Amino acid sequence: MAKDKKLVKNITSRDEDFAQWYTDVVREAQLCDYSSVKGCLNYLPNGFAIWELIKADLDRRFKETGVENVYLPCLIPEALLEKEADHIEGFAPEVAWVTHGGMERLQERFCVRPTSETLFCDLWARTVQSYRDLPKVWNQWCSVLRWEKTTRPFLRSREFLWQEGHTIHATYEEAEQRTIQMWQIYKDFYKETMAVPFVAGRKAEHEKFAGAQDTYTVEALMHDGKALQSATSHFFGSGFPEAFGIQYIDKDNQLKNVYETSWGLSTRSIGALIMVHGDDDGLVIPPHLAPVECRVIPIAQHKEGVLEKANELLDELKKAGYRVKIDDSEKSPGWKFSEQEILGIPTRIEIGPKDIENNQVVVVRRDTREKIVVSLDEITTKLREILETIQQDMYNKAEEFLKAHIDTAVTMDEMKEKFAANRGFVKACWCGDPVCEGEVKYETGGAATRCLIEDEPMISDKCIYCGKPAKHMAYWGKSY
Amino acid sequence: MAKDKKLVKNITSRDEDFAQWYTDVVREAQLCDYSSVKGCLNYLPNGFAIWELIKADLDRRFKETGVENVYLPCLIPEALLEKEADHIEGFAPEVAWVTHGGMERLQERFCVRPTSETLFCDLWARTVQSYRDLPKVWNQWCSVLRWEKTTRPFLRSREFLWQEGHTIHATYEEAEQRTIQMWQIYKDFYKETMAVPFVAGRKAEHEKFAGAQDTYTVEALMHDGKALQSATSHFFGSGFPEAFGIQYIDKDNQLKNVYETSWGLSTRSIGALIMVHGDDDGLVIPPHLAPVECRVIPIAQHKEGVLEKANELLDELKKAGYRVKIDDSEKSPGWKFSEQEILGIPTRIEIGPKDIENNQVVVVRRDTREKIVVSLDEITTKLREILETIQQDMYNKAEEFLKAHIDTAVTMDEMKEKFAANRGFVKACWCGDPVCEGEVKYETGGAATRCLIEDEPMISDKCIYCGKPAKHMAYWGKSY
Ligand SMILES: [Zn+2]
Ligand SMILES: [Zn+2]
Repeated sequence: MAKDKKLVKNITSRDEDFAQWYTDVVREAQLCDYSSVKGCLNYLPNGFAIWELIKADLDRRFKETGVENVYLPCLIPEALLEKEADHIEGFAPEVAWVTHGGMERLQERFCVRPTSETLFCDLWARTVQSYRDLPKVWNQWCSVLRWEKTTRPFLRSREFLWQEGHTIHATYEEAEQRTIQMWQIYKDFYKETMAVPFVAGRKAEHEKFAGAQDTYTVEALMHDGKALQSATSHFFGSGFPEAFGIQYIDKDNQLKNVYETSWGLSTRSIGALIMVHGDDDGLVIPPHLAPVECRVIPIAQHKEGVLEKANELLDELKKAGYRVKIDDSEKSPGWKFSEQEILGIPTRIEIGPKDIENNQVVVVRRDTREKIVVSLDEITTKLREILETIQQDMYNKAEEFLKAHIDTAVTMDEMKEKFAANRGFVKACWCGDPVCEGEVKYETGGAATRCLIEDEPMISDKCIYCGKPAKHMAYWGKSY
Repeated sequence: MAKDKKLVKNITSRDEDFAQWYTDVVREAQLCDYSSVKGCLNYLPNGFAIWELIKADLDRRFKETGVENVYLPCLIPEALLEKEADHIEGFAPEVAWVTHGGMERLQERFCVRPTSETLFCDLWARTVQSYRDLPKVWNQWCSVLRWEKTTRPFLRSREFLWQEGHTIHATYEEAEQRTIQMWQIYKDFYKETMAVPFVAGRKAEHEKFAGAQDTYTVEALMHDGKALQSATSHFFGSGFPEAFGIQYIDKDNQLKNVYETSWGLSTRSIGALIMVHGDDDGLVIPPHLAPVECRVIPIAQHKEGVLEKANELLDELKKAGYRVKIDDSEKSPGWKFSEQEILGIPTRIEIGPKDIENNQVVVVRRDTREKIVVSLDEITTKLREILETIQQDMYNKAEEFLKAHIDTAVTMDEMKEKFAANRGFVKACWCGDPVCEGEVKYETGGAATRCLIEDEPMISDKCIYCGKPAKHMAYWGKSY
């Protein structure tokens, strides 16, 4: 039966217009759409189900390290937001203000939380007294609001979903270690679960989170050569908690400061998933995050016994623990294949009269289109193997792409040339002055430092822009 | 070793002052506390972990019936909230308004969602066209904001956590059936998971949700004889969706109306759990919702081999799938017992040198204080049996209490007498006039209809207040 192309026609080619391709995939896979609230998204079942799997995976990793979940209010009193100078400066331009409750004008306004460091610190200032109360290693899954001007599905919207972890510790070392531990969890998560490779490191001084002493980032590379900041872990030292008056009495009876961290990952990660793995036929979801791992598609389903056998297979796979569905609608197989591909379901199983006769099915991989004939006797174990292979192959393919898109530059001419060709990340040295970074950004059409590289020898001793002594080597890239 | 009473002293006796007992238990078990945002709670790890188990259990039940999870914005444009007259009338007095975004005054104000019928209907009005798009059976887990004047932990707060399910259907019958199906899920959940019995039925006309045609409720009875509305399922008919212009083209090519339902359960359920099961020593959590099912407490832990054996046992229980922790701190066993009781952990295992010698442990039930000697060889299976027995016994005990607190009345004198003695629910007949209900409420010090009783013969043909012909029999009760 000839493949019906009707569905795929609605997706622009990835290389023709990447931005339009992205919009098309989000729409055709029904992941989310814009709401009547400008800049806010409706997360539809297909998109939200991916987020639920992300949450479950990450939450398990967190809890294994002793993280406890909590929930703090969605509103922050203005006076609280203003307690830490850098923090209010960073967030004031983009918060939404509640000024009326019921029929009355409020005496103090509240902002809808853009992030909750202030609320956590306020709570701890009232409740932490002794070394016995430490550490606090807390996290919340919630939505936050930032009054952005331009918005794109998953990548930038006024309201988005995330987790925000907040911790305080008795010592500098313990807090620093926790910052790095959570950063490591994000790296493991991106590699093992998202099948997304990355570069990672500390952010340059002026790119840090508002109020943080250090920000560690995970930077993934999208198919169009742009970077996406995919998760961050912040070390605050004791400055932020000091502004809120958090102190504890230690074993030696001395009053001491606490040290703070925070770390977050948001629904942006779904944007990364789309832009790293998707292709011209639609979404490609890594099996570990696929709400449906396999769709069973009966062939010639009007023929005797086909639907029956397909449903038997469905039940068997369900019982074996697979997330599996059947498409037994009246649509043509070609249309069904096309839809399964758009939705990014990692495998489909084709089962028709010939297959049944031969006691077999055809498993088709979404990522490679490879067709694999599998005996019905082995399908419940083979399908898991195929899914694990897909997961691994998707990572390998993306890693190859990343490696092929990391370059080096020691002169501005090299730098400009490489970014003119959309080469992804470029390693280059830098004096540390934001002015130089700004000039590089201007001359390359948008490339800035994504993170510092601290575990490799520097490729030059001069700043790529001003020629003065280089302080850092960094990954540079254009970004979302 | 004598039991150290220090911890328990902080809890007022339940029969002395129930309201104070409640506040004490919430504080001492560290479930939640008030935040700097007046009327908003901080859900602390112990309280939020119960909510996570409630979510997991209920979400599984929902998904088994085809419910899909989504997430819609936390803000609602004023014009949208106003589209359905009854709805805006019901909610206008208690919503919080966002009037500024960033540095600018907004052209249209938004309220922080008090409930999301309007957003779901707005989305469906734009996206539902054909019978193929129906039904939609969606749910979201989120927080909502209602600008309440008085607040109490879990029972009434400005912000609370809940799930809100919203569905639309092609026919009246299908929607009505879904309303009742979700009501049944709540009833199953309260019985099987919360171990909380209830009365249930339709709400009287003027007690229905703003805009609903029918509201089905689950009403649990607290230890002080007051009812708590514990979950509701609403049938909207086609009025609400019509106000939003949701119509579809049916198979016969005719444009038709859709029929809507919504249903919700909130963190109030934690209030029910506390007030049904708690006792003078603190919280008592039903095992199915206990973040920690068992706490292992070593006795004479300084003696050789005790801590080692206790930790072995801990690992063994973890491996067998129990949610289990150990208290190997330096506190006295008496203090540890007391803390485990305050926290409501369903069982503790005491393990000391004598026990180890005899290859046994002592399991102590939180609900009855019964001590059960169990061989170490059998503990991984016996503990599950004990937990299941506790779960069942807690339900039975609460059900006995409920049954003992349901009375009947045919005269106002009977009615007043029964509510003077805090008798829980009273069955009485009623003409249906809210004025009569108001008078009863006044004369009884607060008892109103909790739900109608439609499956039993009426005990009188006259309204208990005015003596006119009775239309309904109802459960009456004072309530939270
Ligand atoms: Zn420079
Ligand atoms: Zn009457």
